[in-house]
Amino acid sequence: MTKLRSLPLKQITIDDSFWNKYTKLVPEVIIPYQWDILNDKVEDAEPSHCINNFEIAAKLKEGEFQGAVFQDTDVAKWLEAVAFSLASRPDPELEKSADEVIKLIGKAQAEDGYLNTYFTIKEPALRFTNLKEGHELYTAGHLIEAAVAYYKTTGKDEFLKIMMRFADLICSVFSEENNSKGYPGHQEIELALIKLYEVTGTKKYMELAKAFIERRGKAPNYFLEEEKTPLYKNIFPELQDYLPIYSQSHIPAREQTTAEGHAVRAVYMYCAMADLAYEYGDQELFQVCEKLWDNIVSRRMYITGGIGSSGLLERFTTDYDLPNNSNYAETCASIGLALFGRRMAQITHDGRYMDIVETALYNTVLSGIAMDGKSFFYVNPLEVWPDNCMPRTSKEHVKPVRQKWFGVACCPPNIARTLASLGEYAYFTSEDSLWVNLFISGTVKANIKGKEISVDVQTEFPHKGRVQLSIGGGSELTFTLAVRIPGYVREYSASLDKAEIKDAECQNGYLYIEVSGQSLLELEFSLPVRFLHANPLVREDSGKVAIQKGPLIYCLEEADNGGNLPAVYIDTKKPIKEEYIPELLGGTTVLTVYGKKLSDSNWKEKELYKESELIWEDKEFKAVPYCYWCNRKPGEMLVWIKELL
Amino acid sequence: MTKLRSLPLKQITIDDSFWNKYTKLVPEVIIPYQWDILNDKVEDAEPSHCINNFEIAAKLKEGEFQGAVFQDTDVAKWLEAVAFSLASRPDPELEKSADEVIKLIGKAQAEDGYLNTYFTIKEPALRFTNLKEGHELYTAGHLIEAAVAYYKTTGKDEFLKIMMRFADLICSVFSEENNSKGYPGHQEIELALIKLYEVTGTKKYMELAKAFIERRGKAPNYFLEEEKTPLYKNIFPELQDYLPIYSQSHIPAREQTTAEGHAVRAVYMYCAMADLAYEYGDQELFQVCEKLWDNIVSRRMYITGGIGSSGLLERFTTDYDLPNNSNYAETCASIGLALFGRRMAQITHDGRYMDIVETALYNTVLSGIAMDGKSFFYVNPLEVWPDNCMPRTSKEHVKPVRQKWFGVACCPPNIARTLASLGEYAYFTSEDSLWVNLFISGTVKANIKGKEISVDVQTEFPHKGRVQLSIGGGSELTFTLAVRIPGYVREYSASLDKAEIKDAECQNGYLYIEVSGQSLLELEFSLPVRFLHANPLVREDSGKVAIQKGPLIYCLEEADNGGNLPAVYIDTKKPIKEEYIPELLGGTTVLTVYGKKLSDSNWKEKELYKESELIWEDKEFKAVPYCYWCNRKPGEMLVWIKELL
Repeated sequence: MTKLRSLPLKQITIDDSFWNKYTKLVPEVIIPYQWDILNDKVEDAEPSHCINNFEIAAKLKEGEFQGAVFQDTDVAKWLEAVAFSLASRPDPELEKSADEVIKLIGKAQAEDGYLNTYFTIKEPALRFTNLKEGHELYTAGHLIEAAVAYYKTTGKDEFLKIMMRFADLICSVFSEENNSKGYPGHQEIELALIKLYEVTGTKKYMELAKAFIERRGKAPNYFLEEEKTPLYKNIFPELQDYLPIYSQSHIPAREQTTAEGHAVRAVYMYCAMADLAYEYGDQELFQVCEKLWDNIVSRRMYITGGIGSSGLLERFTTDYDLPNNSNYAETCASIGLALFGRRMAQITHDGRYMDIVETALYNTVLSGIAMDGKSFFYVNPLEVWPDNCMPRTSKEHVKPVRQKWFGVACCPPNIARTLASLGEYAYFTSEDSLWVNLFISGTVKANIKGKEISVDVQTEFPHKGRVQLSIGGGSELTFTLAVRIPGYVREYSASLDKAEIKDAECQNGYLYIEVSGQSLLELEFSLPVRFLHANPLVREDSGKVAIQKGPLIYCLEEADNGGNLPAVYIDTKKPIKEEYIPELLGGTTVLTVYGKKLSDSNWKEKELYKESELIWEDKEFKAVPYCYWCNRKPGEMLVWIKELL
Repeated sequence: MTKLRSLPLKQITIDDSFWNKYTKLVPEVIIPYQWDILNDKVEDAEPSHCINNFEIAAKLKEGEFQGAVFQDTDVAKWLEAVAFSLASRPDPELEKSADEVIKLIGKAQAEDGYLNTYFTIKEPALRFTNLKEGHELYTAGHLIEAAVAYYKTTGKDEFLKIMMRFADLICSVFSEENNSKGYPGHQEIELALIKLYEVTGTKKYMELAKAFIERRGKAPNYFLEEEKTPLYKNIFPELQDYLPIYSQSHIPAREQTTAEGHAVRAVYMYCAMADLAYEYGDQELFQVCEKLWDNIVSRRMYITGGIGSSGLLERFTTDYDLPNNSNYAETCASIGLALFGRRMAQITHDGRYMDIVETALYNTVLSGIAMDGKSFFYVNPLEVWPDNCMPRTSKEHVKPVRQKWFGVACCPPNIARTLASLGEYAYFTSEDSLWVNLFISGTVKANIKGKEISVDVQTEFPHKGRVQLSIGGGSELTFTLAVRIPGYVREYSASLDKAEIKDAECQNGYLYIEVSGQSLLELEFSLPVRFLHANPLVREDSGKVAIQKGPLIYCLEEADNGGNLPAVYIDTKKPIKEEYIPELLGGTTVLTVYGKKLSDSNWKEKELYKESELIWEDKEFKAVPYCYWCNRKPGEMLVWIKELL
C-alpha cells in the first residue's frame, strides 16, 4: 500500500470556530511568549536560559550553562513552531528573529559539526559518554526536525545544513564501521533522521535510524555497559538505578508486544518503527507496530487519548490500569501518540488510527494549554480534587491549575508545534486522491493527477455534524475524495451536488467518493451525546460512565456543579439536553444531564464512619468539554461519573 | 481526673482463641527469628548488621558501620519485646541472650555516656549536628523504652543505668543552661523520657521531654538553621528539601490543630504531649491533644485504624483524603495511634478512645504480620490489585504480599513489642477499680484497695459477644469493675451472679459495676454484622460500604471471590450469613453477602470504551477479617465495596 503524504502547510488554511481559539494563539501569544521565555524575559516564569546557553557556546559571552541537559530542545521546538506558523501566516519580523537564532545555532556548532550547548559548555570531554541520560541525540533530533520544517516553509537551507553537518558527525560516530552499539536514551532522533532523509534523499540518515532501532534492547544492555566505562557520569540522580524497561531497551524492539516504560520515549520510538517498516517494506516490523498500537489503545489509554498511568517516571504500567486522579498522561505523550497514529493511518489508509489521533488532539493535547495560551498542563488527570494535589505527597505531580512555564519545558512548545501543524493531521494526499481526516473549516490546495485542486471546508464540527466541502479546480478534473467517517458516527448521509449518494464505498473508516473539480460534497453526521462505559476490567471505571459527543469527551467541573463530584450519580436513562452557549468558553456545546447527588446532610461534622441511610438530592448537572477544564475558576473536575444503576 | 495505670505485664495472662494465634508467635517465632535477623543469620532476608554494629562500636571487632542511621533501634525493639514476653513467659535462655546484648550495649557506650553505633563508628565528630535526619534521639528513645521494660520485668538495672547515663548526657547537651534550641527530627524520645522519669523519679528527664515539645516549631525553624551550620551533613537525599511540616515543626506544637506530616512522627509526639499535659496539669496542652485526636479520627483515619494517606513520605495529607489503593497506612503509625489513644483513655476514662485503639490493634496492626509470624506489611492498603503494584511506579510502595524483612525494619519489631504488651491495652487500674478495655480470655491480677484480686476472663470475642468475668479475691472485698461497652455495641445485657443488672451506670463507654471478690459478671453484647458508610466527603468511598463485625473490618479476597473485585456490588438489603469456620485461617467467622458482579461477557478483547449494556451476574461473596488478608494465596483484596443502590 502506498503511504499517504501530508500536504505542505502552506497549502492549508484553517479558519474554524473550534480550532481558531487555539491555532490563533500560536502566532499571537505562544510564539511571542515563548520567545520571551527563551530569552528569560518573563518575570514570573522559571528562567529558560536557552538563548543564553547558545550565546555562551558560541563564545559570544562568558558564563555557565544553565538548565536541563536537554535545554536546547526548547529552541528547537520554538523554531519548528515558527516554521509551521510562517507557512500559513507569513511574518517577516518573526522570520528575521528565527534567522538570527539559526545563525546563533550555527555559531555554537563545533568545527566537527557537534552541537549541544550543555556538553559544549559544561562537559566537552563527555560527548556521547552517557547516552542513557545525556539527551544529546534527543536534542539533535528536535533540532533536525526544526531544520527540516524551516527548510520546507522558507526554502532557506542554512539551518538544514547545520543539522546535516551534525547528522553526518552522528552517522560517523555511531556507524557500524565504528562498531558502535549505541542508541539514544530518549528516542526522538530516529524519526527526525527519517525526515532528514525525506528532504535530502541522503539514505545514510535513515539507515542510522534503522540501526538505532535494531540495536535497541539487544543483550548486553548498552546503557548498563555504558555505566561501567571510565567516562560515565550520572546526570539525573533519579535515573541512577535504571531499569532498561524505562527506555524500552529491555528487549529488542522487534520483540516488544506491550507498551512499556516512559510513555513519550515509547511513542516517539514507535513513530520511527512505523516509518522504517514502510520504507524498508518490513512486514515483521510493521506487525510489531500494530501490536504496540493495539496494546495502547485497547488496554493502556485513557478515553481522552492520554497515556502513562504512573505519576512516578511518567510511564505505562499494566493492562487496564488506568487510575484517574493520580495518572501522568503527559501532554507530550498524547502528541507522540497522535504522531504514531498519523503514520499508521498514512501507511494503512485506515481511519481507526485517525479516530485515536482525533481523540488525543481534541482532548488531552488541548487540555494541556489554557485558552489564553499562557499556562500549561504537563499532567492530564481525569479526576481532580484540588485539596489533595499537595506538594510532597503521592499526588504532587497533579496540578489543579495550569502552570506558567516549567523548568523542564517540553510540553508547551510541543503543543505549539502541534497546533501550528494541525493541517498535517487534517489532510493526506496520494497521486490521485485527497483524504479529509479531520473536520476543520478552511481551505486546502493539493496537486492531484498533476492538477491544482482546492477544497473549501465549512463546518461547525464538533458541535454540529454538518460538513460542506466545495471543490474547486475545474469540472474536467475528477478525482477521489476520501472522507473519514469517524468510529463514533453510526448514521450519516452524503450528497454530491445536492443529490444523495447511496452507493459510495466506505472502507476502513473512509468514504470514497468520485468528485469533479467543481463539486459540492455535503456530509451530515449524527453526533448524539453518548454515555460510554469502560471495559469492566478497568477497575477504576467500573460503575461509571463518560460522556462523549463526537471526538469530545465531557467532564463535570465544580464551577458548574459544586464540589464533591464523586458523590454525583447520573441517570443514564434520562435524556441529555444539548445547548450551544456562544459566550461560554469561547462558544461551546454544554450538556445537561440528570441524576442525584449523595448528600451529607445526615452526617455530623465529627462522624467519619457509621451505619447510615443514603440521602439523595435530585439534581441536574452541566458537563463541558474536557479540553476546556480549568479555564474558569479552579476546582474539582471529573470525567468518569458514577451511574445510577 | 486521675490517670489510670496499665498493670505490670507479669500480672496478666492471655490465653485467647483470637489472640493466641498472634501472641504465641512472639516468643515462638518472632523473637527467635528477629534474633537471627539481628545476627544476620537469615539467608533470604536483608542483613540487619545490628549486633555487628554494636560489636564494632564496642571495639570487639573491626569493620564498617552498615545499615540505616537508626539501625540500633532494631535491637532496642527486640529487647523491649523480649522484656514484655519474659513477663508473661519466663525463658532463662532468652533472658541470658538479652543480658549478653545488654552487656554489649554497655561496651559500645562512650565514656561520657553517648550511645549510637552509627555516629560512634562512622561520624564521631558529627554527634548531634544533624538532629533533622540523624535519628540519634529517636534511637536513644527506643533504647530507653527497652531499658525501662527490661527493668520492670526482670528487676535488673544494668540496662536502665546504661540508658540513664546516656539520658543524663542528653539532658546536659540539650539543656536550657546550654541555651539549646534542639529537638529530635523524629519524635520518640519524648515519650521514652517520661517513662524513664516514671521508673526513676528523676524529674529532669520529663523536663527535657517537655522542653523538646515546647521548642518544636518555634521560629526560626531549628532544622533549617541547623543546615547552615558548618558540621551539617545531609544523610537522606530524599529529605534534602525538607519542609518543616514533615516533622511537625512548622508551627509550635501547642498551635497545631491538624495532624500533619509523617504519621509515625506525629503520633509519637502526641503521646508525649498527652503524658506531659497530664503530668503538668496543662489543660491547654491537653486540648491540643484532643483537637489532634479528633482531626485524625474524624477526618484522616481509615476505617481499619490506618493513618498516612500518602505513599510519598508516609504522611497525612488533607481532611477526607483517604485513597484506598495507594495509601501508606504504616503498621507503625497505627501502633503509635494505639499508644496515643491508650494515653487519652487513661487520662479521660473515656471508652471512645479505646474504640479506636481496638480498631487499630484488631485490623491494621494484625494486618502487618503474617499468621506464621515470618513476613510483614509496612503499608496497609484497603484495596489491592497485585498486577499494578509495580516497582518504579506510583504504587511501588504497595506490596501485594508481605515481605520477609526490610532494610528499614521498623514495623516487624514494633508489632512484636505491641503483641507482647497487649495486656497494657487490655486493662487499667486505679486505687479502687479495675478497667476491662478489651475482651481477651485469660487472667488478670491486680491490687485494689490494698488487696489482691484476680479476674478470669472467658470469651470467644470478637466472634461471639459473650464475656464471662469470674472475680477472685474473697467476698469481703468490694470494688468497681469498669467494663468497656464498645461504640459498635448498641444492645447488651449484664448479669452479676446470674442476676440481671438493670441500674448499672454506663458512662463514657464504660459500665461501672460494684463487684465482690467472688462475683461472676457476665456480659452479652450483640455483635451484628453491619454495613458502614463513610462520610460522603470521603470521595474515594462514596457509593461503597465496608463490613464490620465488632472491632473487625472485613474484606473480600480474590481467593474466595475471584478477581476484579471493583466490579462487585453488594445488596445491603439482603441478610448476611455468618459462619464460624474452625479450619479457616486458624478459625474465623466468615460472612456471606449477596449481590451482583458486573460481567465483561459482552466485551471483546480489544474493546476498551464503548456504549454497552451492563450485564450482571447474581452472586454471593465471602468476606474474611481484613487482618487475615493475604494469608492464603496472593490476589486482589477490597475493603470498600460498591453498594447496589
